[in-house]
Amino acid sequence: MTLSPADAAFAERLDLPRDRLRPAETRYMEEPRGKYPGTPGLLALPHSTEEVAILITAAARAGVPVVPYGGGTGLVGGQVAQHGPAPLILSLERMDRIRAVYPEEFVLIAEAGAILADVQAAAQEADRLFPLSLAAEGSARIGGTLSTNAGGVNVLRYGSARDLCLGIEAVLPDGSILQGLRRLRKDNTGYDLRNLLVGAEGTLGIITAAALKLSPVPAGQGTAFLAVTDPQAALRLLSMARGRLGEAISAFELIHRQGMDFLAETLPQVRLPWDEPPTWSVLIEVGLAAGLDPEEALAGLFEAAFEAGLVTDGLIAQSAAQRDDFWNVRENIPEGNRLIGAVASHDISLPLSALPDFIAEADAAIAALGPYRINCFGHVGDGNLHYNIFPAPGQDRDEARKAAPEVTGLVHDLVARYEGSFSAEHGVGRAKVGDLERYGDPTKLMAMRAIKAALDPAGIMNPGAVLRG
Amino acid sequence: MTLSPADAAFAERLDLPRDRLRPAETRYMEEPRGKYPGTPGLLALPHSTEEVAILITAAARAGVPVVPYGGGTGLVGGQVAQHGPAPLILSLERMDRIRAVYPEEFVLIAEAGAILADVQAAAQEADRLFPLSLAAEGSARIGGTLSTNAGGVNVLRYGSARDLCLGIEAVLPDGSILQGLRRLRKDNTGYDLRNLLVGAEGTLGIITAAALKLSPVPAGQGTAFLAVTDPQAALRLLSMARGRLGEAISAFELIHRQGMDFLAETLPQVRLPWDEPPTWSVLIEVGLAAGLDPEEALAGLFEAAFEAGLVTDGLIAQSAAQRDDFWNVRENIPEGNRLIGAVASHDISLPLSALPDFIAEADAAIAALGPYRINCFGHVGDGNLHYNIFPAPGQDRDEARKAAPEVTGLVHDLVARYEGSFSAEHGVGRAKVGDLERYGDPTKLMAMRAIKAALDPAGIMNPGAVLRG
Repeated sequence: MTLSPADAAFAERLDLPRDRLRPAETRYMEEPRGKYPGTPGLLALPHSTEEVAILITAAARAGVPVVPYGGGTGLVGGQVAQHGPAPLILSLERMDRIRAVYPEEFVLIAEAGAILADVQAAAQEADRLFPLSLAAEGSARIGGTLSTNAGGVNVLRYGSARDLCLGIEAVLPDGSILQGLRRLRKDNTGYDLRNLLVGAEGTLGIITAAALKLSPVPAGQGTAFLAVTDPQAALRLLSMARGRLGEAISAFELIHRQGMDFLAETLPQVRLPWDEPPTWSVLIEVGLAAGLDPEEALAGLFEAAFEAGLVTDGLIAQSAAQRDDFWNVRENIPEGNRLIGAVASHDISLPLSALPDFIAEADAAIAALGPYRINCFGHVGDGNLHYNIFPAPGQDRDEARKAAPEVTGLVHDLVARYEGSFSAEHGVGRAKVGDLERYGDPTKLMAMRAIKAALDPAGIMNPGAVLRG
Repeated sequence: MTLSPADAAFAERLDLPRDRLRPAETRYMEEPRGKYPGTPGLLALPHSTEEVAILITAAARAGVPVVPYGGGTGLVGGQVAQHGPAPLILSLERMDRIRAVYPEEFVLIAEAGAILADVQAAAQEADRLFPLSLAAEGSARIGGTLSTNAGGVNVLRYGSARDLCLGIEAVLPDGSILQGLRRLRKDNTGYDLRNLLVGAEGTLGIITAAALKLSPVPAGQGTAFLAVTDPQAALRLLSMARGRLGEAISAFELIHRQGMDFLAETLPQVRLPWDEPPTWSVLIEVGLAAGLDPEEALAGLFEAAFEAGLVTDGLIAQSAAQRDDFWNVRENIPEGNRLIGAVASHDISLPLSALPDFIAEADAAIAALGPYRINCFGHVGDGNLHYNIFPAPGQDRDEARKAAPEVTGLVHDLVARYEGSFSAEHGVGRAKVGDLERYGDPTKLMAMRAIKAALDPAGIMNPGAVLRG
């Protein structure tokens, strides 16, 4: 079906107060890496779910493309239209209320426009934990984190956004409102539409509010940086830590020396834990129940791992300030990468036991292409690596970037061979539509297209994202 | 579309060895409560996913209804056709292999016909825990537990079947094979077909194998029976326990005295924890990390709860035998109920904080209908109650059962008013199709029908289950 632009005539027909619509400012057509300039469009700022329904109903009738816009922090261009007529850019930023907190139920209900950090704060105020945590939490909005099934540093213990969602309210592509804001832990009454919309990147409807699962705040937290001999040792350390501490391990991040070297070069104010960084290190965080001492638990783990030859050195944070220093290193690595300027970045996941072989094989294959620098880091507890390739020192960036398609093809082919994923947490967006077509299971694609056509026959919802428009 | 019978002509056209097909024995047309006698059909016993695909492809072409049959333990008639032409009854009992165990990845791959208890045992052999646990685990099969998103006693800590599944292999209604057997913790590459098939009760395809999530075996386990003053106290105890022990609480079961009285009457060999059972009690199980003593933790919880006036008495299991005794009580309650003979049983869930009011209001409303006995018990940590109504002592059962529709209507209306679910863990099957139509969100039903029509245009997959055929 041919789509129509969100033009003045479309805007005039809408039965909404005037301040709900305006031409979108440039920032709504940009994304963090500046890779996908967006098509200018009409910005809609609804104040309620009913207003979202009015907008979508009108768009469905007129065949106007709708591009949902959350915090704008997505890294795969899901938030910017690149082709087609002027879209209706739908931002839920004025629907940012925490509707309710139920501390005794460990549930919080937030509107989709609520900023992730505000949801964390509201949970904390009720002595509860909303564990979804990621670098962009100060601007990412709940609707976007759910639509992209965001991950972050606490997935190992608490799961992705999907796992933290009990129910959603949403507007489907025909404008009807899905009332699914249940705060139930168990509800086996029909198909799981919640999980279908979560991770659909706005192509099957607009999440307008969510019932979110809270957790108890762990009684004691501890953080350690351990130098591991190699990625295999990191995995054995993880297994050992799980055996000793169970679910208490909330984060387990692998860091390559390259990331620390980039920080020393680009952000010298970031305090590094070692003068001479080890080739591989792991940042571990544990949250323990009352009665256990986190520092003692980490010291015990270090000793056992040292005896087993897995770690060679270790630092256990002795204060909140030191803990912040440790996390600062991890959280600034993406910014260090950005300042150096990558040839190609990859957000991949692998079966845990395949990680060491993958890293060795990929490193060798990249080295065969040229003298690139590789910064391999990530949420290794989840099998999730950010495997990013950088120009050699002194190499011309623009020249080096010409190799991006070759580099990415090599990495993604290898990921596929190891039965991994070419997008662990960032999603498909518009950047990886081709990867999905190339590496995705054909039956899965067939079923996805059938579902898309069934729920959005006019093809108005975020056209060009996830599936080719 | 009109469906055709799975008759001799259909069987002859199939390119499969002869022993894969035979007329179904009576047991394949029965279900545990004997409430829904099934239509006789042709039994198919495929040996591989490819054979399942051959069967489904042929059924799709011929318009033959397919009824998937797991362990046959479902309680809502999802496994027995009640109308229409002779179905192809598809049992995966010959596909019962554990394909692989990856202890260091905490992953196990099982075929759909594998019995739940065998999966638990395979995990245990690898020093891992597969935490899905329910009364029927000796006969329930993995395919069925996933298709119904089974719950059980450990949902509070580990989640339902859905939460324990990383990936599935499945045959879709057109006979194509979905290769989704990923062992990845993170994979954001398109729509979540896994969760769409999980809980779809065989109406969108046949799950043939699954990658399942394992957990560390807790270092120490402890079990206690605590007498609580009322359901509100049970909830406050739960909140207190979570605050003290975090995720370590694996089960939190509310038990009403009526259940113990039924056991004393029907199964006197079951050892009861109290001579004079309290009106309300809670069975708690904790699994703690190394370094914590479960008995001490439970004793500390008891003392704090006693001081807060939440509990009046408590028993902490001192041995594995006593622990088994405690669990025997809980696990035999359904059998005691069966022997007494219910007027109506309800598998409901409610927002946690609504539970006490719901119980009080429902009890009063039932009492107003007649001198019924009420056995209210269940996984209260998940907000899940089995709220079952029994004839007064001496009352004629068949006579009393005539009130079942009225009783169930009353209970389910009240559940809806409290924003609960009329089916927390048993699913919709054929028994609750009317409830879904009555209480389900209209937009959800519309979307479900659109998805069903898109993926199964011929309507062959488990017709009459979940959605009206």
